[in-house]
Amino acid sequence: MSIFEKAREHALITSSAAILGWDQETFLPSGSSKYRAAQLSWLSARAHELATSDDWKNELEKAEAADPGADHRLTANLRQLRREFDRATKLPVELVARESEANSISMHAWSEARKQSNFPAFAPHLETLLSIAREKADRWGYANEPYDALLDGYERSTSTAAVAHLFDDLRPKLSKIAAEAVDISNRHAAKLPTGPYPIKAQQEFNAKVAESIGFDFQTGRIDTTTHPFCTTLGPADIRLTTRYDETDFTSSLFGVLHEAGHGLYEQGLPDEDFGLPSGTAVSLGIHESQSRLWENHVGRSRAFWNHWYPIAQDFFPALADFSIEDFLKYVWRAEFSPIRVEADEATYDLHIILRFGLERRMVNGELAVKDVPEAWNESFRELFGFTPPDDRHGCLQDIHWSMGGLGYFATYSLGNINAAQLFAAARQDSEIASAIDQANYAPLLAWLRKSVHAHGSVYDPAELIQRATGKPPTADAYLSHLQSRYLR
Amino acid sequence: MSIFEKAREHALITSSAAILGWDQETFLPSGSSKYRAAQLSWLSARAHELATSDDWKNELEKAEAADPGADHRLTANLRQLRREFDRATKLPVELVARESEANSISMHAWSEARKQSNFPAFAPHLETLLSIAREKADRWGYANEPYDALLDGYERSTSTAAVAHLFDDLRPKLSKIAAEAVDISNRHAAKLPTGPYPIKAQQEFNAKVAESIGFDFQTGRIDTTTHPFCTTLGPADIRLTTRYDETDFTSSLFGVLHEAGHGLYEQGLPDEDFGLPSGTAVSLGIHESQSRLWENHVGRSRAFWNHWYPIAQDFFPALADFSIEDFLKYVWRAEFSPIRVEADEATYDLHIILRFGLERRMVNGELAVKDVPEAWNESFRELFGFTPPDDRHGCLQDIHWSMGGLGYFATYSLGNINAAQLFAAARQDSEIASAIDQANYAPLLAWLRKSVHAHGSVYDPAELIQRATGKPPTADAYLSHLQSRYLR
Repeated sequence: MSIFEKAREHALITSSAAILGWDQETFLPSGSSKYRAAQLSWLSARAHELATSDDWKNELEKAEAADPGADHRLTANLRQLRREFDRATKLPVELVARESEANSISMHAWSEARKQSNFPAFAPHLETLLSIAREKADRWGYANEPYDALLDGYERSTSTAAVAHLFDDLRPKLSKIAAEAVDISNRHAAKLPTGPYPIKAQQEFNAKVAESIGFDFQTGRIDTTTHPFCTTLGPADIRLTTRYDETDFTSSLFGVLHEAGHGLYEQGLPDEDFGLPSGTAVSLGIHESQSRLWENHVGRSRAFWNHWYPIAQDFFPALADFSIEDFLKYVWRAEFSPIRVEADEATYDLHIILRFGLERRMVNGELAVKDVPEAWNESFRELFGFTPPDDRHGCLQDIHWSMGGLGYFATYSLGNINAAQLFAAARQDSEIASAIDQANYAPLLAWLRKSVHAHGSVYDPAELIQRATGKPPTADAYLSHLQSRYLR
Repeated sequence: MSIFEKAREHALITSSAAILGWDQETFLPSGSSKYRAAQLSWLSARAHELATSDDWKNELEKAEAADPGADHRLTANLRQLRREFDRATKLPVELVARESEANSISMHAWSEARKQSNFPAFAPHLETLLSIAREKADRWGYANEPYDALLDGYERSTSTAAVAHLFDDLRPKLSKIAAEAVDISNRHAAKLPTGPYPIKAQQEFNAKVAESIGFDFQTGRIDTTTHPFCTTLGPADIRLTTRYDETDFTSSLFGVLHEAGHGLYEQGLPDEDFGLPSGTAVSLGIHESQSRLWENHVGRSRAFWNHWYPIAQDFFPALADFSIEDFLKYVWRAEFSPIRVEADEATYDLHIILRFGLERRMVNGELAVKDVPEAWNESFRELFGFTPPDDRHGCLQDIHWSMGGLGYFATYSLGNINAAQLFAAARQDSEIASAIDQANYAPLLAWLRKSVHAHGSVYDPAELIQRATGKPPTADAYLSHLQSRYLR
């Protein structure tokens, strides 16, 4: 079996595990979770075993030795498989098992600690997770600082210093936009009628919208969960989930647009390369660019609602007397709030800048776990002008650290930045732009398919953006977007 | 790893495959079936590999050698694991692969042939399936005739001759009951109001009924499919499915009662032995006894409807003017129809007797494939008094042969017979009987848990029935049941 056949077999296992994971989040009866964990653990052990086997190594070496370098895609696939093999085999099995156990214990502890807003109850777990993260970084190796090795796992070939530089530059600009946006929003508030927005009507409306932007229900579905996500169960089996608020239909709608953005990327990857790097999404920062593009640049635009608002009014009679102008004010509202997942576009990245700074210092050994709440609150005060009411609304709010996801947060802002740059580049084509202005998104999707989706992870994220937009990634388009959206 | 640990690992794999299979029948997007087949095939190859490995064999031998014979359950587990190992390893991998491919091609061919009522299009596939079945029988070995080896795979330690003897005895008795039942039913017909019976109301009513008989929704679910089934995704994860007819709520209700009967058995198996024979259902004939008991002895009884009919009338206003007497006439209707899956209790087993006779002759080489339609129609005429309109309503109606399921059909009637014997035995206890008469089924379920479910496959089917009822399996209780139900 060649290394590519092996990689495809590996995808059979991980995608099977994804089916079990999807069911766990959507339909699993409440009394059944323990055995499901055992089934998932069996599958992940088989996937790990395969991808770290001597046989895998030998086949990879054989293919590398035989590669004449003439086929860019082939070479990129081998380079990426090598990268993944090296990262996987640099961690001893004992460490992987220890990490998996620590994550599962810590998630539980975090969930309890958050409920009680009790950081000291979570602190020893965070110590363990941090020490595992540092051990992994040491084993993987890094150019400048341990955090590099972690970030690289989520956003390949991206350095901590470059992100820090970007965020340092953005911080004052974003703070200024946020302050003005919140001020304008306060002066022009509009309150969405509280419904009713029956779930069934929301589901039908959302499906209509998702289909209209190109999400393919022949190879996808939308189901209900507490924590929305998009998951890939096979090359032609992409599942979105959302949750419903019967007093605000926009909550599930923007959720669906976000997840459908992820889903369109997955549906646009080359099917025939499923399981190979060239058939796999390149990074979280690129993935998030797709979800943010459809959620924010498309879904929160005036052109979108010129088309969809009358239809929404048909679906939801509660909107009958609420004007589109008031509705857009509601959609574009901005406020300083302590919770990241509830943040609007104007303030979102401030939450990320805070987290990135904090976890970089933690990982690099410059911030002790016991000092995290104080550092969080201080940084929050600087950015948002007030102190969170408690740790539950502060350093305990996110699940990421408890899952061992140190190094992840920056990719959300990279996604925002990439989304704006891609959207602006697509709009350079006047046909695409005029279609967008008529809420016809087929040309935009075709451009994304060709410029982003078709390449899988053949190019590094920065190179992909450069090739798609003609420029290296910068925050220029993103800042322009925020300005024109909020500073009206 | 001991043989028991290995058996539990095997169950992790097969139950994971069951999750993929369940999803395939309920939620899989239409464009995704091809990759799902590849995922399932990977899992089944791993399960087969494990259960036929040298390592498995060595551990089994070690455990057998070490068994002092003092623990009946342990010895039974080893005996059954040995039985399964021998059956699995007697078939060469080449034959297993050939069979799997033939089944998948034949199912497709059968589905097309049935649509067009074109037996000659299916005939060459049936030839192949038959020759594979005979080859398997030869490799497994048998005492008297090849059919024994096939039947034994579905109903262990049951001989063809014994079933034939039973059916020969039953045939005239069942024919007499059926003829009288159909006659009475024709003279006292009652037509169910055509609704509407909205799906949502059916779902709520069915769930109420399923819960009331003891189906545990903490460890189970009911979803929607075209072909209803019950499947086990883990020791505490039992999924039922049903389908809805908006003009007849009893269709999904009796479907749910049937599948919940299977589900109650699975929920009643000892969780701690999941994956071991002692934690696994013993045979199809015992499994079907549980579904038939709840569907027919409970669900079609007057006591059941005395309690549930007023509630059904609340759920379905269309029933307001339809009396319970008329409703029971509808529930107890009997007719001679060509299709097995639509048959009532009075005529069902005649369909089975026909199939058992035919496939026994096919497997034993006494009936050529080309002669099947004629033999079917002749036998049908003898049993039902008319000829099926075409092969679609005759020898092409069932999926079983096309799946390689030769030897399966008899277990449906064994299930009917076992159900009646178990139900009658339970009613010997006056407390259980009087609870049943008040539509309180907790004591009945407790008796089934103790007498049947708790034993997994420690005992052979006949021994299980003997222990539970004090008598070897006979059709006496079943005939009494049919008489008192139909010959009023």
